[in-house]
Amino acid sequence: MFFASDNWAGAHPLIAERLFQESGGFASAYGTSDLDRKVEAHFRDVFQHDVAVFFVGTGTAANSLALASVTRPGGVSFCHDEAHVMADECGAPEFFSGAARLVAVGGAHGKIDPADLKAKIGRFPPGAVHQGQPTAVTITQASEIGTVYSLDEIEAIAEITRAHSLPLHMDGARFANALVSLDATPADMTWKRGVDILSFGGTKNGCWCAEALVFFKPEIAKEVPFLRKRSAQLFSKSRFIAAQFDAYFKGGLWLDLARHANGMADELRAGLSASNRARLAWDTVSNEVFAVVTKDAAKTAEERGAKFYDWPVPAETPDLLGDNDMLIRLVTSFATSKDDVDGLLACLAG
Amino acid sequence: MFFASDNWAGAHPLIAERLFQESGGFASAYGTSDLDRKVEAHFRDVFQHDVAVFFVGTGTAANSLALASVTRPGGVSFCHDEAHVMADECGAPEFFSGAARLVAVGGAHGKIDPADLKAKIGRFPPGAVHQGQPTAVTITQASEIGTVYSLDEIEAIAEITRAHSLPLHMDGARFANALVSLDATPADMTWKRGVDILSFGGTKNGCWCAEALVFFKPEIAKEVPFLRKRSAQLFSKSRFIAAQFDAYFKGGLWLDLARHANGMADELRAGLSASNRARLAWDTVSNEVFAVVTKDAAKTAEERGAKFYDWPVPAETPDLLGDNDMLIRLVTSFATSKDDVDGLLACLAG
Amino acid sequence: MFFASDNWAGAHPLIAERLFQESGGFASAYGTSDLDRKVEAHFRDVFQHDVAVFFVGTGTAANSLALASVTRPGGVSFCHDEAHVMADECGAPEFFSGAARLVAVGGAHGKIDPADLKAKIGRFPPGAVHQGQPTAVTITQASEIGTVYSLDEIEAIAEITRAHSLPLHMDGARFANALVSLDATPADMTWKRGVDILSFGGTKNGCWCAEALVFFKPEIAKEVPFLRKRSAQLFSKSRFIAAQFDAYFKGGLWLDLARHANGMADELRAGLSASNRARLAWDTVSNEVFAVVTKDAAKTAEERGAKFYDWPVPAETPDLLGDNDMLIRLVTSFATSKDDVDGLLACLAG
Amino acid sequence: MFFASDNWAGAHPLIAERLFQESGGFASAYGTSDLDRKVEAHFRDVFQHDVAVFFVGTGTAANSLALASVTRPGGVSFCHDEAHVMADECGAPEFFSGAARLVAVGGAHGKIDPADLKAKIGRFPPGAVHQGQPTAVTITQASEIGTVYSLDEIEAIAEITRAHSLPLHMDGARFANALVSLDATPADMTWKRGVDILSFGGTKNGCWCAEALVFFKPEIAKEVPFLRKRSAQLFSKSRFIAAQFDAYFKGGLWLDLARHANGMADELRAGLSASNRARLAWDTVSNEVFAVVTKDAAKTAEERGAKFYDWPVPAETPDLLGDNDMLIRLVTSFATSKDDVDGLLACLAG
Repeated sequence: MFFASDNWAGAHPLIAERLFQESGGFASAYGTSDLDRKVEAHFRDVFQHDVAVFFVGTGTAANSLALASVTRPGGVSFCHDEAHVMADECGAPEFFSGAARLVAVGGAHGKIDPADLKAKIGRFPPGAVHQGQPTAVTITQASEIGTVYSLDEIEAIAEITRAHSLPLHMDGARFANALVSLDATPADMTWKRGVDILSFGGTKNGCWCAEALVFFKPEIAKEVPFLRKRSAQLFSKSRFIAAQFDAYFKGGLWLDLARHANGMADELRAGLSASNRARLAWDTVSNEVFAVVTKDAAKTAEERGAKFYDWPVPAETPDLLGDNDMLIRLVTSFATSKDDVDGLLACLAG
Repeated sequence: MFFASDNWAGAHPLIAERLFQESGGFASAYGTSDLDRKVEAHFRDVFQHDVAVFFVGTGTAANSLALASVTRPGGVSFCHDEAHVMADECGAPEFFSGAARLVAVGGAHGKIDPADLKAKIGRFPPGAVHQGQPTAVTITQASEIGTVYSLDEIEAIAEITRAHSLPLHMDGARFANALVSLDATPADMTWKRGVDILSFGGTKNGCWCAEALVFFKPEIAKEVPFLRKRSAQLFSKSRFIAAQFDAYFKGGLWLDLARHANGMADELRAGLSASNRARLAWDTVSNEVFAVVTKDAAKTAEERGAKFYDWPVPAETPDLLGDNDMLIRLVTSFATSKDDVDGLLACLAG
Repeated sequence: MFFASDNWAGAHPLIAERLFQESGGFASAYGTSDLDRKVEAHFRDVFQHDVAVFFVGTGTAANSLALASVTRPGGVSFCHDEAHVMADECGAPEFFSGAARLVAVGGAHGKIDPADLKAKIGRFPPGAVHQGQPTAVTITQASEIGTVYSLDEIEAIAEITRAHSLPLHMDGARFANALVSLDATPADMTWKRGVDILSFGGTKNGCWCAEALVFFKPEIAKEVPFLRKRSAQLFSKSRFIAAQFDAYFKGGLWLDLARHANGMADELRAGLSASNRARLAWDTVSNEVFAVVTKDAAKTAEERGAKFYDWPVPAETPDLLGDNDMLIRLVTSFATSKDDVDGLLACLAG
Repeated sequence: MFFASDNWAGAHPLIAERLFQESGGFASAYGTSDLDRKVEAHFRDVFQHDVAVFFVGTGTAANSLALASVTRPGGVSFCHDEAHVMADECGAPEFFSGAARLVAVGGAHGKIDPADLKAKIGRFPPGAVHQGQPTAVTITQASEIGTVYSLDEIEAIAEITRAHSLPLHMDGARFANALVSLDATPADMTWKRGVDILSFGGTKNGCWCAEALVFFKPEIAKEVPFLRKRSAQLFSKSRFIAAQFDAYFKGGLWLDLARHANGMADELRAGLSASNRARLAWDTVSNEVFAVVTKDAAKTAEERGAKFYDWPVPAETPDLLGDNDMLIRLVTSFATSKDDVDGLLACLAG
């Protein structure tokens, strides 16, 4: 009953097998092999657009390089207050960006509020040398709290970035989960809505270690090969990442895996909604579920081997919990089984 | 006939298989799993010493974090002029170190000359605020040109670093190749000779992607967890690195693979030495061989599918080549076959 | 009628004269002259404490070096949301600190709220590698909006920093104005209340260009000589700063100048309080005054040559202004005359 | 008898006086005053070219910002092995440039050898991601050892930088000394010979603290306002720098001062050349003189109060000194008197 995070899973058998098959033979190193080229081309097919693709090792690397690629002196990037880049990357985005700043933007349900974004950008008027200069906006899809920007919501953010000539980055550590939730195409959810740069995550959705930094305007990525190498993210045997993506895309495996994870989360949502002993803390639509449960139920679950994290009560809902309640986060993945979901629900929702 | 680099090989079957086996199940993320712990303990056994171990994704990351972990404002690190940190890492060591400088030290055969090291350190007397301050010395074992520091040579460098209270780092991207060449123990070649920090490379010797940063004085590594995370080198599914090392160490596989690679290089060396049409450019003892061959022979080899790199003539031997000669680098690996060696020698050495 | 900022003034005649007198002769460079030493010793007298003193060129440099001197990887410093380091230094603190982050803390009247500070620090528990690690707290005395921390309020912040073993920095760009407002000694307002590092500003209070970074625990300043030189803040003719401070301290000139500036602000405050056409936006006690005035009055003042800045309405008092009102900032200095104050009041307060 | 460095002098009376006069009144801050504008325009007159001018506090700041303004990821700048940026700035150029590297180029007499420059640039072919990418070349005029590039020599360097599309920077800490030595115009010695960016130093030639970063292609300086502010080099009372330059340029004072300094050096050169007890170590033409003197003579001079520095023997002339000899550097300035020159010669040259 592992619901702590989708990165507690290993690798999907088809991906692990593909990697194993690739282990023999020789190929040119540092991202120059035929397989690297083939998989990069596959990204073009998936997104129906010319792209510059850079394989990297972690989502933090992808996000940080994305922001670094467009930074300028005194630069500030705008992200949601709870974004991974702000809350969970130990300052890597700032470090990769040569000390640029992240500015927190508010917004309900883990998503940037366009009005607040406009206000925050407005604090940095052009040429205001004491304040600094805006360089990018980054959104997280799916968000850190299980919600998903609608296509219109992405477009609304993009209108603001276009108006300020700012690139729009999407942290897609859980890109596939958002995509199947919206039933959209990769193109729909990205460049067609104004996204310029994408951190495309494979690790949380069934790969060992496969992240890609995708630029929909390749001409702005000219310095990225140097940025990537300088940040030690150019892998000599780069095809071990490419091979994972090769299997990931094959036959739409990546979408199947995301559908499975989201489906398991749907089961959790249904079970919790139907319960008298637990309830959903807020609506989510991807593979993350936030539940208000009794401390006793949580304790029982943990005693039976369930793994999940306590979660801090959001500032916007201070009265979320009763005295005997706690808020927990449950994350499903490609590897989550119906048995585990049922077992957990038996503990929590009784 | 792949002799371009040891990183053109894939992964050894036992390592690839071990990784495949690990793909199922769940484990806590970010380096906290039981397997991570087990493999860290294995490092202690291998080195017969308490160590702090940090898995990272690339050799560049290991080297750069090593130097970053001991840097100070205005810091300078000393390395051989041809060291990987100087010549092949796109400034990553300086970037990770907050803009510290690398100072080139001369020395024959790819190894730091102790006298020149002393002289170079001497340019930075204590408190010389205009010049900066020494912070580390780094040596490469095996060196970039196939040579290996003897244990006494390491000790001679360490005497200097001790005298200046500087940490001594070893870039061990080809640690195993050097080790079996010297027939020494890991302890002999490191902390017993004054090495404080080691970049322990597995990738070039049969892993997909497995590098470890090893501190023999764990107390100086207190900031490294933050440094590693901030540089995007903390992998969520860290056990995909641990699993590779698990197989790498099992039954001494790592030493067997290095012996094989060195042995294949021995065959090359023997064949070239016996030839009238080619010769060794200089003596090497690890898995790298540098040969002076005729341009015709090189062309023939390439036409038959051999892969290798031209190499620039060292400044210290400007007259190395005749008019029809060229200098090439040949690198063997765990995956090099006797047939390939024989095939290449047939082309080059006739 | 110059009320835009205290840095619109030039230099006080006694300071300008002292600098002129110093222009002859020769002295050793880079902060090693007898005059540098003498003035450093004067700082010890002023603060009744052993100090390490570093002259620098700007307040931004002093603040940034202060935070840089205590930073660590993944480091975060805590400041008020409106602090100069956050709002007006173009990311210099982050840049000098190797990409460390500033975290905004709330608090009424431009001063850090201790409860919020505790909460914000609490988000970075020890060893939380994904979040980063606290490295310093910085307060501004006098604050950016004209208020001043009482000695007890400083002590309350210091209790928190001590509990977390964090150094406490004070941005004293308007140190003298705060000091005379509190009628305290320099020791009272700093190390006796737990301040570890001080940016001691002379520029806004009558110097041309004289800022000092003061450490009350000299042992933590060992890297600062290198930090200062590396950030291009070590002046060859350092005694041109020292000479200014020499005159600044002589006979308590610095306190007289601050008393004058505060006194002129008192006149403004009195005039505005007594007016029917204008009012104080909030209480201030140093040389800054924030006034709600009619747009007509402001226009009249500007037409008569008055210089001041519009100021954004604070989020905590959204209803501050009527339809015809505006919020302005008025800053006095050593050079402000009673005539100018009266002239301005005639325009604004009628 | 102060010959240690030209920065041991104070300020020329006309410059000190001009600064004193400026001390009254009010003016807008941060480089926006009328005086700032006027002096910037003066730079345009002096150089007969449109320029973007940025006043900064130190030569290290000017040099570091110059290189930072054109840096890119993995960037390397090329400078003479003995350049100030390499030898005397504690890594500031690298720090300001976000960890870019300086690559040392050889050349006799303190000047870059064009052939070696070509060779060094050649190590960084376009797209060589492992090596990094060239971003600038910087030359020092006058050089650190008292020599001066002829106009043709500057042109020869510029041909190389143009061929590689690299900006050419000139460190002009002793610009005026070089200029009067060549009897050239400012335009001749800079943009007419291909110089793109200039660090224009006033401090060593009679100012307290006046350095300017000058761009001859203003369009490449668009980020410099942010770079300067972020590095804490934007002075609130910027006109204290502008006022110094105002006097510096007035009536050609700057050229007179440099002529005086060079003339005093000429006297030293003449006296040493005529001596049996001392000799010139190498030919110089600016305000620096390097002399081989007997240890006894040096001791005598020091006992009589002379100040100068020992200088290391250049690697290219290992046999420069006899057993009883030492190499010393003598620097003259606007403040050097004929009496002091005669007094020193009496000690050294007998």
